[in-house]
Amino acid sequence: MASRSIRLAVIPGDGIGPEVVAEGLKILEAVAPSSGLAFEQTSYDLGAARWHRTGETLPDSVLEELRGQDVILLGAVGDPSVPSGTLERGLLLRTRFELDHYVNLRPVKLFPGVKTPLADVTPDDIDMVVVREGTEGPYTGVGGVLRKGTGHEVATQESVNTAFGVERVVRYAFEVAASRPRKRLTLVHKDNVLTFAGDLYQRTLKRVGEEYPQVSTDYCHVDAATMFFVSQPRRFDVIVTDNLFGDIITDIGAAIAGGIGLAASGNVNPDRTAPSMFEPVHGSAPDIAGQGKADPTATILSVAMLLDHIGAGDAARRVEQAVSDDLAERGALGTRSTAQIGDAIAKRVSG
Amino acid sequence: MASRSIRLAVIPGDGIGPEVVAEGLKILEAVAPSSGLAFEQTSYDLGAARWHRTGETLPDSVLEELRGQDVILLGAVGDPSVPSGTLERGLLLRTRFELDHYVNLRPVKLFPGVKTPLADVTPDDIDMVVVREGTEGPYTGVGGVLRKGTGHEVATQESVNTAFGVERVVRYAFEVAASRPRKRLTLVHKDNVLTFAGDLYQRTLKRVGEEYPQVSTDYCHVDAATMFFVSQPRRFDVIVTDNLFGDIITDIGAAIAGGIGLAASGNVNPDRTAPSMFEPVHGSAPDIAGQGKADPTATILSVAMLLDHIGAGDAARRVEQAVSDDLAERGALGTRSTAQIGDAIAKRVSG
Ligand SMILES: CC(C)[C@H](C(=O)O)[C@@H](O)C(=O)O
Ligand SMILES: CC(C)[C@H](C(=O)O)[C@@H](O)C(=O)O
Repeated sequence: MASRSIRLAVIPGDGIGPEVVAEGLKILEAVAPSSGLAFEQTSYDLGAARWHRTGETLPDSVLEELRGQDVILLGAVGDPSVPSGTLERGLLLRTRFELDHYVNLRPVKLFPGVKTPLADVTPDDIDMVVVREGTEGPYTGVGGVLRKGTGHEVATQESVNTAFGVERVVRYAFEVAASRPRKRLTLVHKDNVLTFAGDLYQRTLKRVGEEYPQVSTDYCHVDAATMFFVSQPRRFDVIVTDNLFGDIITDIGAAIAGGIGLAASGNVNPDRTAPSMFEPVHGSAPDIAGQGKADPTATILSVAMLLDHIGAGDAARRVEQAVSDDLAERGALGTRSTAQIGDAIAKRVSG
Repeated sequence: MASRSIRLAVIPGDGIGPEVVAEGLKILEAVAPSSGLAFEQTSYDLGAARWHRTGETLPDSVLEELRGQDVILLGAVGDPSVPSGTLERGLLLRTRFELDHYVNLRPVKLFPGVKTPLADVTPDDIDMVVVREGTEGPYTGVGGVLRKGTGHEVATQESVNTAFGVERVVRYAFEVAASRPRKRLTLVHKDNVLTFAGDLYQRTLKRVGEEYPQVSTDYCHVDAATMFFVSQPRRFDVIVTDNLFGDIITDIGAAIAGGIGLAASGNVNPDRTAPSMFEPVHGSAPDIAGQGKADPTATILSVAMLLDHIGAGDAARRVEQAVSDDLAERGALGTRSTAQIGDAIAKRVSG
């Protein structure tokens, strides 16, 4: 059978990034032949090391090359030796903004057998998808500083929200909600304080919602939402929220669903005007880098999302099932290395 | 013994507000005689009912009267019949801003016997104080909307942070940290994205910290902090953070420490240029209003903070101990009404 060729950009990044990406690629290779896929990989050296060497975070030429790819897999970027924000803004957020990743898709799902810090919850209680806006809100970088270092310093950060930007992410969230059994969409915001932005989200939810009568909607303040994540996670099916609130609640989501080692994400451009980028939610964890201790599961689940995005839904489900089976047995298996976990999951998907 | 007279403004507010405030006042009355205090109460009719009747949220004349009081006790404001934000911005936030409540003080403490949704934690693991900035950040109301209702709408919200505002709250947090056994202060922010504001907080922490060599400091991104609240709450002693991050993390704090029914707060003006205001973190809960179902404990703990603020530290500790004793026995007591809980705690403080 002729295989479909996919141009895959790989950004291993810093710390544990290269280790977990290696396992993600192992899974892609394992699933490719039987799915009629062939990955043409190009690896990009971006992150702390390059910044130290050249001062570059994401050169324009590399950005242009990335645009020519079909899809991107990223490990993690960041190192304490680099000033905070340099790589985050210059590489990670720049990619999300330039490639118009307006949906930051983050499933929060407790797999059977996974230990959660919450008492009294079962996998049935935690199964949601957070649709986080990815290209505006407080992440625009708009703002500045006046009289820096003096007693009269003023530092501002501006959250910019547009009808265009809000509508497209809300619409996407309705599509996700409509495809799920519970068909429930919750807007998470802080409309009693951030009245201008909150009102735009509220009106948009209402207007777009008229096209989705089968989806029930409600609203929850972000502060209350974080509480419900801990006390009644079952309350949520699909959540749509702004860039910053989404950042925060998906970390609590990761915490309740077994930890950051399992949390996957997709920075998605649903219009496919540029490649989407898949990455584990966790960071580069320099403290455990190079020791084979990192859990590659979040990357492997991100690979499943990547497969789904490129139209290989069957392969995506096989990978997710393999992860699920592996997780169910972990308790009995003792400590395994990064590669051992990757090998075990690869074996399940190929076998 | 001659008693010290304290002018106490009471704002019962909406929903369960009046019910829980009644119990708070019961405790104040119970503790007053033996503490040499006499409360001169003035009750202010503010909230949804007044807004419906007169369109007023906080008339200037009432604000001026409040300024002449020594301290304020607030129940809760808000009702679904009032457009979101009206009372929050017009009454609650206006009071915090006008009376310069630059410290929003929120203890997060798991009392013995209280059920937490977290598995494997004990009261030793959850004992922190969040010092939330109260008068700037994203709560300023700065921002606006352009081309409202069109496809070209732009809605902005601006976070404004000043050297003046950041320094005074950071300094307060160092004082709190220095007074506690662990002497540890964590800055919670998102300095890798909100680089201007985050940098101002970081530099201020460093500079003011030189005056407090006995306090150890560290930094945690807000997203990671929410995760640690769930997975390793012990990590935190005192936290200093901005207005919005403080709002969010204290709700998770409430969730892990036994729920919003127990979370107390103080809107404090440490310079005493205007009265401080104490209030439970919870809202007006209109769904259970008037049924005697509300838990007055958060209000009673807020009353303890109020007592501490007016210099009645012994009385404050007696109230806190009475609450602690009551909580320790709750499991065995079955359901009690709002007034029954108040009575039981009042009996302990007076007896
Ligand atoms: C590293 C940081 C810029 C990033 C974010 O805030 O979006 C991260 O926390 C995430 O959630 O992907
Ligand atoms: C009601 C609302 C304006 C308020 C806030 O956001 O500060 C509340 O959530 C709180 O935490 O006191």
